Amino acid sequence: MVNRKCIIRLSRYKSALQRLKALGFVKVFSGNLADAAGVTSSQVRKDFSLFGITGNRRGGYSVDELISKILEILGKNELQRVVLVGAGNIGTALMRYKGFESGGIKIAAAFDIDPEKIHRDSDPPILPLEEFADYVKKNSIRVAILAVPDVAAHHVSELMIRSGIMGILNFAPIQLRGAEKVIINNINLEVELENLIYFVNAMQKTGQIE
Amino acid sequence: MVNRKCIIRLSRYKSALQRLKALGFVKVFSGNLADAAGVTSSQVRKDFSLFGITGNRRGGYSVDELISKILEILGKNELQRVVLVGAGNIGTALMRYKGFESGGIKIAAAFDIDPEKIHRDSDPPILPLEEFADYVKKNSIRVAILAVPDVAAHHVSELMIRSGIMGILNFAPIQLRGAEKVIINNINLEVELENLIYFVNAMQKTGQIE
Repeated sequence: MVNRKCIIRLSRYKSALQRLKALGFVKVFSGNLADAAGVTSSQVRKDFSLFGITGNRRGGYSVDELISKILEILGKNELQRVVLVGAGNIGTALMRYKGFESGGIKIAAAFDIDPEKIHRDSDPPILPLEEFADYVKKNSIRVAILAVPDVAAHHVSELMIRSGIMGILNFAPIQLRGAEKVIINNINLEVELENLIYFVNAMQKTGQIE
Repeated sequence: MVNRKCIIRLSRYKSALQRLKALGFVKVFSGNLADAAGVTSSQVRKDFSLFGITGNRRGGYSVDELISKILEILGKNELQRVVLVGAGNIGTALMRYKGFESGGIKIAAAFDIDPEKIHRDSDPPILPLEEFADYVKKNSIRVAILAVPDVAAHHVSELMIRSGIMGILNFAPIQLRGAEKVIINNINLEVELENLIYFVNAMQKTGQIE
């Protein structure tokens, strides 16, 4: 069945295909994509068959066809518009992040409570948080990025959900739980780094590496 | 057994405990931590017993004791020093990110190839990439954050590994694979957001939400 990991792999295949296309490749083999996505070739073929993508194992897949099929599956033939709350360090970095636009994702507007951060003419515009609900409803936005300090995270996530947001990418360092019919992906940078440090320390302690 | 998810949960318990402590709590129950970390109470007790942490189910656990035990397990009684390569948007946001220091993690130095970004007097100092190997060896650094554009990611990850780095937190939008005895955690912001958009679209299409 289609699960989260499978969709993550499709996103990775798509990124790899776009890079290969930029390098002039016309055909690819499952092994190329397996290398790029860090999985096995048979996993690639399994994923493709799940979505009815067929190829010629000897002749390979057409790069253009694969990209357009994956974009269709990911629902990305049109630009996906999302909003962001919190124009601090992480929020500002995300607004400037080039990877989103090349992937067909546009941060349509950002919101903050600090009057000094409001810039209606910037791209994306940074608007007062009070305008969030109206903006989201008027523009039928469904996905939001939350990049506010931990003390504000619950309050803002509730505002998001009340305003009709159905998917939240949470960078605040607390674990938000989804409400009914709301999906929350938590990205906790500190936890990721701690995790890495723990395993590196464990590798050193067990003497696997002097 | 101790796996990645278990360590991630310990990090979350620790963050929750530190917030509870700041609010004046002296005792906690497994249910409090379960709520904060988004798991069940029995999962919390299972994790604690795995590491030999015992508590009194009726009297609860001492917040201070739990924090110091978890810090010991995570190897964090001393400040963990890491380095960062790439002083662009994401890298700069990470250098300014407050969550690391409060968690006992310090970005000791950052590195970039752009001479205009070099600032030896800033905190952390931003040094030329040529000094990376020397710095890492001299300071026994084992964990690095990679925040460079995709075209540079492979090259920089190889430099890191050659210099003795054993854990890499990769923000470049390509999937890096670990070498022997090197752990790589990939954080792909675009993939996370695409994934969320896919499932929100799927929820809408299936009519679960009008």
